[in-house]
Amino acid sequence: MGRWEPNPRGRLLQAAFELYGERGFEETTVAEIAERAGLTERTFFRHFADKREVLFAGVDSLTELIVTTVADAPAGLAPIDVAARAIEAAGAVIEEGGDLPRRRHAIVAASAELHERELIKLESLASALAAELRRRGVGEPDASLSAQTALAVFRIAFDRWVHDEDGRDLPQLIRESLGSLKALAAAG
Amino acid sequence: MGRWEPNPRGRLLQAAFELYGERGFEETTVAEIAERAGLTERTFFRHFADKREVLFAGVDSLTELIVTTVADAPAGLAPIDVAARAIEAAGAVIEEGGDLPRRRHAIVAASAELHERELIKLESLASALAAELRRRGVGEPDASLSAQTALAVFRIAFDRWVHDEDGRDLPQLIRESLGSLKALAAAG
Repeated sequence: MGRWEPNPRGRLLQAAFELYGERGFEETTVAEIAERAGLTERTFFRHFADKREVLFAGVDSLTELIVTTVADAPAGLAPIDVAARAIEAAGAVIEEGGDLPRRRHAIVAASAELHERELIKLESLASALAAELRRRGVGEPDASLSAQTALAVFRIAFDRWVHDEDGRDLPQLIRESLGSLKALAAAG
Repeated sequence: MGRWEPNPRGRLLQAAFELYGERGFEETTVAEIAERAGLTERTFFRHFADKREVLFAGVDSLTELIVTTVADAPAGLAPIDVAARAIEAAGAVIEEGGDLPRRRHAIVAASAELHERELIKLESLASALAAELRRRGVGEPDASLSAQTALAVFRIAFDRWVHDEDGRDLPQLIRESLGSLKALAAAG
């Protein structure tokens, strides 16, 4: 395949995930990823800073989507529901990714370094979400509480989705988990 | 001071926090900590695995306290309130630490490596809390949701406590933040 083929970014992602799954993250080089994708290393570095970023580029996109969704949410919606709407939008995008997010999850879970990186990225995501809620006029600690709680709901729903054998979709699991959280809070 | 002086662990903690605050974590050696405490390096290593662990030994103790508090909570208490009771107990211990927890926080916040380590430790804390809730018969996702939510409440209350100028105590701030969370969940 030549470098003029369409969707180089998607092919690099696909190639990287395959290789990380086959050999492990540590054992895979950028040269091997580029080769598998039929592209050059130079093309790789036009799309990703390094081989780790291939796994986290999606989190940055999701953070952007979450912030935009919060900015566009109707006025008067309760903060927790604004945050929930944002993580549901993120869930819908992940759901469209089919098998890829599950494979990514397995790769990240297998490496302490990648798991730490994931936690840092999720922390940034929660901060960005809280900042956008404050921009809507939500005060503190409500903005941070809504953001952190939404992130907890998201992570728990995602975990269920990864292991779910009933084939429920991620936005549905997010709605269910949010419902569980509201019931827990009301029972306390 | 000789090595027979009382409370070597407390003195090592005190000395380490002083040095980390004065010179930074990276620039401080175990030899310097031991010297400042009037103890030997050998004594240091009887109490802590390395200079990083001086900062995280407390988190391990708090995790134990949280697990014990959950185990001892009365039957029939709502899961979110069991979790809240556990983080309040942790908050009371931190409150007793006076200025030390605030200094520790400043040291950890100043280093990317220490901040990552903190996130991993808090993740373990949430897992231990969820596991203990399951042992009480709380199902999933409720156990994980209660644990993650309680951790979010704790972190937000702690952050307010670190920056609080009104001198409110940490257990009080934890109760307030939990109240805010319940109000947010009920409004959504």
